[in-house]
Order: sequence, then C-alpha cells, then structure tokens
Amino acid sequence: MSENTRRVGEFIAAWRRNRLDELMRFIAPDCVYHNIPMQAVKGAEAIRAALSSFSSLASDVEWVLHQIAENDHGVVLTERTDRFKIGGKWVELPVMGTFELRDGLITAWRDYFDLQQFTKQLPPPQS
Amino acid sequence: MSENTRRVGEFIAAWRRNRLDELMRFIAPDCVYHNIPMQAVKGAEAIRAALSSFSSLASDVEWVLHQIAENDHGVVLTERTDRFKIGGKWVELPVMGTFELRDGLITAWRDYFDLQQFTKQLPPPQS
Repeated sequence: MSENTRRVGEFIAAWRRNRLDELMRFIAPDCVYHNIPMQAVKGAEAIRAALSSFSSLASDVEWVLHQIAENDHGVVLTERTDRFKIGGKWVELPVMGTFELRDGLITAWRDYFDLQQFTKQLPPPQS
Repeated sequence: MSENTRRVGEFIAAWRRNRLDELMRFIAPDCVYHNIPMQAVKGAEAIRAALSSFSSLASDVEWVLHQIAENDHGVVLTERTDRFKIGGKWVELPVMGTFELRDGLITAWRDYFDLQQFTKQLPPPQS
C-alpha cells in the first residue's frame, strides 16, 4: 500500500473520533475542498469551518470505506458510505471522493454525492 | 495499465460515438448499473433501455476522464465530466464511478453525482 493510500485510509478512519483538531492535521494549508454540488472551499481555515458545520451536528460519525485505489500520479480515489448520527438518527450518504496529496497532506479533496439524498434525511430543525 | 483499466478507458472513450450497440458490448448480461441517486438497474436488457433514454436525447456525447485508478481487486474507480449536447446546448455532469469487471465485461457500475446538477441544466421539454 502506498503512503498516499495509507494516509487517506487514516483520514477516513479518523472521522470515527470526530475530532476537528485531529482531522485538520491531514489537511494542507492551501487545500481546496470541493463538495461537488456546492461551492469549493479554499484554505485550511475555511475548510475547518466547513467541516465543523456538519461535524458539530453529529453525535457519532463513521465513514465506511468500500473501495480505495491509487493511480500512478499518487491520486487516491475512494468509494464510501459516510454515516452521521444527527438528532439520534443515523444519516447515510453514499459518496465517492478524490484525494490529491503532497508530503502526506491533502491538497485537493473532491466529494461527489447527491445533495438531496443527504438533506432529505436530516431531521427538521429544532425550534 | 491493467486490462480492467484499459477496458473502462475504452468504454468511456466509446461514449463519444454514442452508439448503443457498441456500448452494450462492454456490459455483462448480469450487470448491475446504479446511478446512485436513482434505482439500480439490473441486467443488460434493462441497462440498454436506461442508457438509451439519455443517449437518444443527445446529438453529441463526450465523457472526459480526469482520473482513473484500479485497486488490487481489479476494481476501477473514475472521476469524469460527462458531457451531453441536448437541444443544441452542452450539459456537463461531474461524476465519479466505480466499475467491477469479469472477463473484460462490466458486472457492476455505480455512478455518483448530484441529480439536480444534471436536471437543472436540461432544456425545458418541447411542447
């Protein structure tokens, strides 16, 4: 297993602990994070804020890795089910994501999923 | 490049010709094709009908392959922009897809994308 595949595997596994400080140690300062149905988020500070917005909603998180493959350029492609326990209920999102790395840090992260598939599972906002 | 990666690359390139008979030659009889935001489609006959429904809409097709990677199990992961010229206008869909093969034929194909990102680009139906 190459170093990049190993690092991405560790990043995905780390979501189980859902600690923002630990997750951000995988992210390069100049990383671009693009949830494809939404606007790209540029730079570690903005990415931290974006991850916090859904990380903080979840009392439990588990990202299940189905497939991982790396090409000759060191780019790592993943197929996953990202699971978030929100308001006492598990929300499951099928997703594929591409990771580009430099010196063990993620410089580009693009996740492909259906936004409605996610939002329609969310509990209604508490009043 | 492994045989599976080569075959998937050929399948993606073949979309440029948009000929259903040629495309179906890559599909195993028992293939399961799952556009993740929609119902899975099982078997070559049903897949042919599903592909025909959008292939026939398009006067031109081009699937641009950005990344391709294969793991030790021969599973091929892709990151693409699928382009369809519909009603004189190019519609572009960012997508990632996983391909499993047996004897050079695709037995499982799962595409991840945002359905609204596709449908909102479509021209209104002609009356």
